[in-house]
Amino acid sequence: MFETIAFDADDTLWHNEIHYQEAKKQFSQLLSKYQGADYARQRLDETEVKNIDIYGYGIKMFTLSMIETAIDLSDGRITGPEIRQLIDIAKEMLTNEVELFEHAEETLEKLIPRFDLMLITKGDYFEQERKIALSGLSGYFRYIEIVMEKSQEIYQSILAKHDIHPHRLLMVGNSLRSDIQPVLAIGGRAVYIPNEQTWFHENLPVEEVDPTAYDELEHIAQLPDLIDRLMKDETAS
Amino acid sequence: MFETIAFDADDTLWHNEIHYQEAKKQFSQLLSKYQGADYARQRLDETEVKNIDIYGYGIKMFTLSMIETAIDLSDGRITGPEIRQLIDIAKEMLTNEVELFEHAEETLEKLIPRFDLMLITKGDYFEQERKIALSGLSGYFRYIEIVMEKSQEIYQSILAKHDIHPHRLLMVGNSLRSDIQPVLAIGGRAVYIPNEQTWFHENLPVEEVDPTAYDELEHIAQLPDLIDRLMKDETAS
Repeated sequence: MFETIAFDADDTLWHNEIHYQEAKKQFSQLLSKYQGADYARQRLDETEVKNIDIYGYGIKMFTLSMIETAIDLSDGRITGPEIRQLIDIAKEMLTNEVELFEHAEETLEKLIPRFDLMLITKGDYFEQERKIALSGLSGYFRYIEIVMEKSQEIYQSILAKHDIHPHRLLMVGNSLRSDIQPVLAIGGRAVYIPNEQTWFHENLPVEEVDPTAYDELEHIAQLPDLIDRLMKDETAS
Repeated sequence: MFETIAFDADDTLWHNEIHYQEAKKQFSQLLSKYQGADYARQRLDETEVKNIDIYGYGIKMFTLSMIETAIDLSDGRITGPEIRQLIDIAKEMLTNEVELFEHAEETLEKLIPRFDLMLITKGDYFEQERKIALSGLSGYFRYIEIVMEKSQEIYQSILAKHDIHPHRLLMVGNSLRSDIQPVLAIGGRAVYIPNEQTWFHENLPVEEVDPTAYDELEHIAQLPDLIDRLMKDETAS
């Protein structure tokens, strides 16, 4: 059965989106003299998604998207000192502590004697490396993969590289788009741990993933029991 | 003797710095109503170096550094439309074609029957992956390594990972700081191919690298002959 348990990082093992949400709140406050808060946030979301192809993911792209949106929404009236505030938001995000989810480390500790653990995280390489180092968790992982995009092809190439059969993989994450759907599509198993702080771009319309095809947990501490159950079912069948 | 020939990418196999130089020219023109061109460029250089630790390398960090410097140099008077021009410069850089150096590909073609070729490039992962794909050269390389910093430790870990002895490595690049000095320090050989377009940060004071410890070429087409000579000397001694 499973040999490898792979984990998403941002918003699965540690807090991430909450920092973006906080930044977006500051952004819409700053823009409030030019535009309503909801509209400002919506336009920022649109700019971000539009910029993924050209910038990739991460805080630097987010900041450039904030600046671009601020110029648009203010009809160019945004001031130098206001843009400096956006840059200061970015620098603060880039130097934040890494705050682990409750039970994240103890869950890894429980699983490490029985499985190869893997970290598969998407985003800006520089930022991800920094967070992995600060998390103190890197010692738990036999494999650490930082990827630009979590597509079926990328998952397949990671598994091929380490000679892991998809049937022996269980992927754990908070994004239907990045952690669940592509892993199911290549024949792996997936555990979805939704997080209320998930970037809308990581969600998928319900009809695109069969909810019976993956397991869902409320929090990561439930993972070892779920794995035991899955292993038992498999042995019984 | 050598088994692996490793190449730097930016400004060794393809043009890179020339795009930054062009962007810096546009930057100082844009800032000319606030500051003299030389001073603007010098301050931009300083901001970039100061920001490496927090942003890493690459066009996104360069752009954020341009914006930050523009706000500083204009005492906050820089306008939204002017900052939009800086963002447009970045987007153009990020979608540029990759222009190979003359003779780069034919040199790889000559070496590939006799050596394992490796690409070791430093910078923003997203940008480097894009350029490697566009270069059309990835098929020549047995190993492709994108790293955040070219330190001795990083070179050592790359060689350890692929089980390559430093004495069997020849590194080719245009940066004394990144391609030559650290490789010599771990016991490898290095070939320096200076490029007049090299970011000042990549240079080192002459006293920090013994010029007799590495070979220097004018252009990459001379590399196969140099390697033949080095191999012959080795056999003779």
